[in-house]
Amino acid sequence: MSLRFEITQTNGTARRGCLNTPHGPVETPVFMPVGTQATVKGVPQHVLEELEVQILLGNTYHLYLRPGVDLIRKLGGLHRFMSWPRAILTDSGGFQVFSLSDLRKVNEEGVTFRSHLDGSSHFLSPEKSVEVQIGLGADIIMAFDECTEYPAEPKRIRDSMELTLRWAARCKKYFEEHKDEVPWSYQQSAIGPQAVSSFEFQVSRSLDRPQNSNQESDTRNSTQALFGIVQGGMDRALRKESAERTIEIGFDGYAIGGLSVGEPRTLTREIVESTLEYLPRDKPRYLMGVGTPEEIAAYAKLGIEMMDCVLPTRAARHGLLFTSEGKISIKQSRYATDQSPLDPNCSCRVCHRYSRAYLRHLYAANEVLAQVLNTIHNLFYYLDTMRRVRHSI
Amino acid sequence: MSLRFEITQTNGTARRGCLNTPHGPVETPVFMPVGTQATVKGVPQHVLEELEVQILLGNTYHLYLRPGVDLIRKLGGLHRFMSWPRAILTDSGGFQVFSLSDLRKVNEEGVTFRSHLDGSSHFLSPEKSVEVQIGLGADIIMAFDECTEYPAEPKRIRDSMELTLRWAARCKKYFEEHKDEVPWSYQQSAIGPQAVSSFEFQVSRSLDRPQNSNQESDTRNSTQALFGIVQGGMDRALRKESAERTIEIGFDGYAIGGLSVGEPRTLTREIVESTLEYLPRDKPRYLMGVGTPEEIAAYAKLGIEMMDCVLPTRAARHGLLFTSEGKISIKQSRYATDQSPLDPNCSCRVCHRYSRAYLRHLYAANEVLAQVLNTIHNLFYYLDTMRRVRHSI
Repeated sequence: MSLRFEITQTNGTARRGCLNTPHGPVETPVFMPVGTQATVKGVPQHVLEELEVQILLGNTYHLYLRPGVDLIRKLGGLHRFMSWPRAILTDSGGFQVFSLSDLRKVNEEGVTFRSHLDGSSHFLSPEKSVEVQIGLGADIIMAFDECTEYPAEPKRIRDSMELTLRWAARCKKYFEEHKDEVPWSYQQSAIGPQAVSSFEFQVSRSLDRPQNSNQESDTRNSTQALFGIVQGGMDRALRKESAERTIEIGFDGYAIGGLSVGEPRTLTREIVESTLEYLPRDKPRYLMGVGTPEEIAAYAKLGIEMMDCVLPTRAARHGLLFTSEGKISIKQSRYATDQSPLDPNCSCRVCHRYSRAYLRHLYAANEVLAQVLNTIHNLFYYLDTMRRVRHSI
Repeated sequence: MSLRFEITQTNGTARRGCLNTPHGPVETPVFMPVGTQATVKGVPQHVLEELEVQILLGNTYHLYLRPGVDLIRKLGGLHRFMSWPRAILTDSGGFQVFSLSDLRKVNEEGVTFRSHLDGSSHFLSPEKSVEVQIGLGADIIMAFDECTEYPAEPKRIRDSMELTLRWAARCKKYFEEHKDEVPWSYQQSAIGPQAVSSFEFQVSRSLDRPQNSNQESDTRNSTQALFGIVQGGMDRALRKESAERTIEIGFDGYAIGGLSVGEPRTLTREIVESTLEYLPRDKPRYLMGVGTPEEIAAYAKLGIEMMDCVLPTRAARHGLLFTSEGKISIKQSRYATDQSPLDPNCSCRVCHRYSRAYLRHLYAANEVLAQVLNTIHNLFYYLDTMRRVRHSI
């Protein structure tokens, strides 16, 4: 079994449950912090553990370019490479590649693109994306899709959806033929017994959860889970068709893609609500790239299990902090002598120890600690928001 | 009492002891990490506590310019501002000001200089430096001296030494007249009872050392300690004279300044050894701006109590790491697939969890976590070096 999904509580449309992955349990609904280049920018892994992060998102596009999948595979996969013993999900690389609008060319086979790092030319196809994601070895991997731009003409939306469906079937086929190649199963021989035993020791020491105490055997009897992605632009009928035909191919979970691409927020919500009607109730549902704290709470209540967004981490780097009393731009001079914590209702390490005045100084002085502390706070705020939603279900 | 210094063990010239400061004990010999702008770049305060840092160095020049002494004084001093409950030492600002060679003018009264931040004009004198340092409220503050350049003519060295002696007397006088103005004694009224009680709570929660459980009364009955600085260039006779005349003025401890300014390492050591002969055995001795791990161990064995240096933190930011097997430049491609820890003999968090391959990736990808983890390792290495020296005495 690659992924066991249990629903333990429901409340209206909302569902509370657990994703049991080869690298431990993930309580749902869950917010997944983004660790683009095998790191959540500025935050050590033990702090992510303290924050009770149970699943991280890694970006296939970035990891494929640097340090490269061959290196990560050789070193036993992404978990071992970054010393993160809990669950990981990788995206397919599709979204990043489509964001390189001037640097890419799409055809039936896949996408040719140029690296943003050095301009070198690369090719990603459904098969290649899955191959790379198997090499990275996340617990959950995503089908390679085309994220339809917004706005788009009806014909363009249908063509793009059809392409995504053909690619989904190719992803599924490649995955079924190659899923045993995940680096968990051969890491011992690949890097030598000493390195492995030392790593296993580290994993068990850094992880205090009994579920993972026999982690090695868990991973050795497991494969990754592959999720399909529903497209169809802002057209409800196409979303329905995309959902039904994606389910027909058959995946371990279903994502709603192609949203948060510039459309009005009310439209996003309408499309999510209508798409959810067609997704199986016994599989996890993942809304990609969403959103603000209010949005993640609202979508969790609609029945979404998983969400990811760069907002908490990126905003932190720009001094924008989420609090129970609204957003704070810590660079403002009004905070220069403010002795109170960022958020008086927050129990994170940062609010517990530091004043707004100090955080404002760190930001104004361009100190790296500003980024570190701001990111810890914003992640805590997002994770705590989701914790509250789970408890309310 | 401002500072109680106890020697508990001696071994040849080496001394093991404890500096009892208003903000807790400091076991000596000690290496003091540099926290220039009220932060050790990239490292949260709770990690510094985990590393068993007992005293930090703050830079008066930088803090005077940003966020400014009035702000820090108003907020209760540097300890409260940065939420650091353990000991702090501030330098006088002299060294930084003298480093601005094109931007400063020295006369009998003091030094006029231009800010490196915005070019604004400022004036530091012995009185002003001590006034600023009282406002910052470190446990140990330094006399304002002139750091003689190297090489220098005999007359220049003497004139500079005489100026430092006159300034030392002015520092002492100003300090004696104003030492009760340290912000510890009036912080309650300055920021309101609620903020104080919340802060005291944080201090006691973040600090697990029983010595500090009645910290408030400790600081309220204490003043800062003022250290004098011995100059005299590379001239042993002048060093002797400087030491004797500085001792005559009378300070709580004595620093050896004007070294590590470009002279050969053997000369540094000769001057330190000869100067130490003239420093009182019952007072702490501080060698400023030194050095490599080998040097800090060697000088501790000669009888130096305190050292500071930007080397471990600055080198970390450039990917230069100190290990028991020598220096490592982590950017080198030879580490790209190296699964071993940075230093197999190191028990720090970083060596415990991460591989050289991962640290190399973080550095190559210009990730902030590289700086954070590298700094934690280098500081641990320095602190552990000093811990071993203490145990060997």
